[in-house]
Amino acid sequence: MADSPNCDLKSLSPLQLFERVTEQGEKVRALKAGKAPKDEIDAAVRMLLSLKLSYKTTTGQDYQAGLPPKDLVLINNGTAKEEDEDLVDPWNVQTSSAKGVDYDKLIVRFGSSKIDTDLINRIERATGQKPHHFLRRGIFFSHRDMDQVLDAYENKKPFYLYTGRGPSSQAMHVGHLIPFLFTKWLQEVFDVPLVIQLTDDEKYLWKDMTIEKAHEYARENAKDIIACGFDVNKTFIFSDLDYLGTSAGFYKNIVKVQKHVTFNQVKGIFGFTDSDCIGKISFPAIQAAPSFSSSFPQIFNGKENIQCLIPCAIDQDPYFRMTRDVAPRIGLPKPALLHSVFFPALQGAQTKMSASDPNSSIFLTDTPKQIKTKINKHAFSGGRDTIEEHRKYGGNCDVDVSFMYLTFFLEDDDRLEQLKQAYTSGELLTGELKKVLIETMQPLVAAHQERRKQVTDEIVKQFMTPRKLAFEF
Amino acid sequence: MADSPNCDLKSLSPLQLFERVTEQGEKVRALKAGKAPKDEIDAAVRMLLSLKLSYKTTTGQDYQAGLPPKDLVLINNGTAKEEDEDLVDPWNVQTSSAKGVDYDKLIVRFGSSKIDTDLINRIERATGQKPHHFLRRGIFFSHRDMDQVLDAYENKKPFYLYTGRGPSSQAMHVGHLIPFLFTKWLQEVFDVPLVIQLTDDEKYLWKDMTIEKAHEYARENAKDIIACGFDVNKTFIFSDLDYLGTSAGFYKNIVKVQKHVTFNQVKGIFGFTDSDCIGKISFPAIQAAPSFSSSFPQIFNGKENIQCLIPCAIDQDPYFRMTRDVAPRIGLPKPALLHSVFFPALQGAQTKMSASDPNSSIFLTDTPKQIKTKINKHAFSGGRDTIEEHRKYGGNCDVDVSFMYLTFFLEDDDRLEQLKQAYTSGELLTGELKKVLIETMQPLVAAHQERRKQVTDEIVKQFMTPRKLAFEF
Repeated sequence: MADSPNCDLKSLSPLQLFERVTEQGEKVRALKAGKAPKDEIDAAVRMLLSLKLSYKTTTGQDYQAGLPPKDLVLINNGTAKEEDEDLVDPWNVQTSSAKGVDYDKLIVRFGSSKIDTDLINRIERATGQKPHHFLRRGIFFSHRDMDQVLDAYENKKPFYLYTGRGPSSQAMHVGHLIPFLFTKWLQEVFDVPLVIQLTDDEKYLWKDMTIEKAHEYARENAKDIIACGFDVNKTFIFSDLDYLGTSAGFYKNIVKVQKHVTFNQVKGIFGFTDSDCIGKISFPAIQAAPSFSSSFPQIFNGKENIQCLIPCAIDQDPYFRMTRDVAPRIGLPKPALLHSVFFPALQGAQTKMSASDPNSSIFLTDTPKQIKTKINKHAFSGGRDTIEEHRKYGGNCDVDVSFMYLTFFLEDDDRLEQLKQAYTSGELLTGELKKVLIETMQPLVAAHQERRKQVTDEIVKQFMTPRKLAFEF
Repeated sequence: MADSPNCDLKSLSPLQLFERVTEQGEKVRALKAGKAPKDEIDAAVRMLLSLKLSYKTTTGQDYQAGLPPKDLVLINNGTAKEEDEDLVDPWNVQTSSAKGVDYDKLIVRFGSSKIDTDLINRIERATGQKPHHFLRRGIFFSHRDMDQVLDAYENKKPFYLYTGRGPSSQAMHVGHLIPFLFTKWLQEVFDVPLVIQLTDDEKYLWKDMTIEKAHEYARENAKDIIACGFDVNKTFIFSDLDYLGTSAGFYKNIVKVQKHVTFNQVKGIFGFTDSDCIGKISFPAIQAAPSFSSSFPQIFNGKENIQCLIPCAIDQDPYFRMTRDVAPRIGLPKPALLHSVFFPALQGAQTKMSASDPNSSIFLTDTPKQIKTKINKHAFSGGRDTIEEHRKYGGNCDVDVSFMYLTFFLEDDDRLEQLKQAYTSGELLTGELKKVLIETMQPLVAAHQERRKQVTDEIVKQFMTPRKLAFEF
């Protein structure tokens, strides 16, 4: 790359420009400190001023040392968290509040948009369907460019859905189903193709796990995903370890993203260090690439400009902020996003649930008895210490995990509202609320297990075979 | 990864152990400087001592701050060159001597072994063939574990050959043929399978080039490689951009290597910086992976323990030092290597030839007239300034590029020796020596062009289709 400040600056993102100005500033300081010849210092200063001008032209802001452009703040959340902020990145979710993460603050920090009533109404108009309770109840609460997806949809332009999962363990918990249940609804009401990435390569890279085990988990997890009821004619599920070796289109997009993201950038976004393996460092490109339709030539007939919509938990957003930063520079459309809140652990909303702690949630393999015991024993209660106090002051739904779980899984709005009022007023006791949750979850998990039994290896193979789907592009 | 010094140290390379000791030393210093509690400092010191002990057990050397183990010195050449040393890495070859790089020094610095008369004789005995003039004349001068390959060969154990090329431009020069000509000879005398990697992804990542152009160069270069006379039944040529999307075995080995190499390591080996794109940072794993037979399940029937032998120019050695460091940690055999000297530029042996400067060498597309003009005009001469002086003192073959080229391309040993004596004695003039070179190169290039014309797209497709070769594994 040439050193001239003007030749290629137009192709740089605000993030990259910020880095160039910062580097040049450091160079000037080093020259001055080293008492370099005056003309050398002058030349470096002229370059610095020119870079600052380009920065201002591009971002509309003056360069300020240490204060990256708005876009960079958004990208930089991984490592640059303020003291009182929640920690949210693909590997950590931490908050000190029992109510869980402050999602309104997160929207401001991430620079996404709130899913408001207007947008929900517009989805209802566009699809002619009652919005999913995940939308009505703010479980999917934030988005990027969903308006554009709807604009296109209303103009009969196609789009596709992309979601995924890191198959870290054979057993999935009910929280893992959230993005899939919502994606299934989106697929049905919009009638669009869906691709589901299983990042077995990521799990191999991050965990103390063999490549064979990661690959096996991917196939096992695929069964649980298929059991959500996806249509095999409209859905392609893939393991990275398999699909990367099957599709030249996928690898080409990966390498395009990898060319346009520096180590500095992934360090900023994901907090990688020099001691991290090169597999981790380059992995974000592998999660980015399915955002581009040319990664699936068999589905999109080689078309590379089909809009992508990604429903995911908000902790995955850093991957897609990076993807959206890169997309215009490789001539591809930015993916749109729909973000969900985190599913709380039984013990409380302070942390995201962990698949490695069997008591932290209800697993899809749990028996009715295990579900009952777990909820009774571990579900954090917003109720009072004694029945008398509870009757007098009422329970707190904002921190009660049983109530939170019901907002995810009890579809009946009226019933949920009744429970809320009864619990808040003290009429309904903690044990009674837990009973409602037990009676909601037991049949739900049992039905899932029943559907999962029907998912044969042959069906998994069908879903995971690269092929044309029931759409014309 | 656990912090305990003993649990997983056995799996670490000397390089990694050295880093662990260094880090721990820094930690101790930081604790002391920060006046940390005594028990905390003591614990850190105990850990440090324990790490130093592990280091000594593994390397047989005491840990010395700033003095990495012998292996690390070897690995670290990319960036840590001493003042008077030649610079040799995959992107740079520089020396101040007109004789070219000091290869004996390079053997010591890289920790490889010299190809001596004993080894050459052993190759002759094993194959029953007269050794190639590249061996007899020290053009392939250095090796790693060639003895082991011969041990195995003599015990009827199979091995395979792997070489490659970064297709940076449509036109290849005669120097590019060296590894291929030698590899072809090895393939013939040992009768073994051969894989040839065309790193079009690398060229896309490093150069200002579209992915389509890099891919096109790969196919064009394949024609020149095929024109060297490889047997289609024994040779698989692949472009990374194609093959990565065709073989799950290849990607699995890539990701295995990527898990076991840190950014710190590639920084040390290749001199990458934080501003490099993540594609470059992870690329070394892609050049490493063909060293493992499981990258080619279609050829080796899924067997992962077939020994690999890599003939290449010495500047590619950093990739394979890294590969050899990783191999035992992922349970795969280390590849063996045969290293060639660099092919000199027409202008002199100080630098490696560059495909981007048309006058720096003889290209495979040159006409007889261009060859004549280039040699007459640009070939650096070791002759004297005047005919009188030349007759009196003689020419210097050590720096004369025409003579160097003849050592590569004139197969007749007696004739070459005659020319050397006549030139050194002053009997043969520079113009006469150049005439011999012209008459050697013109038919050689013309014959290559003739063979290349025969290489149809259909033949390229045959070579580049993943398939079984004419061997049983």
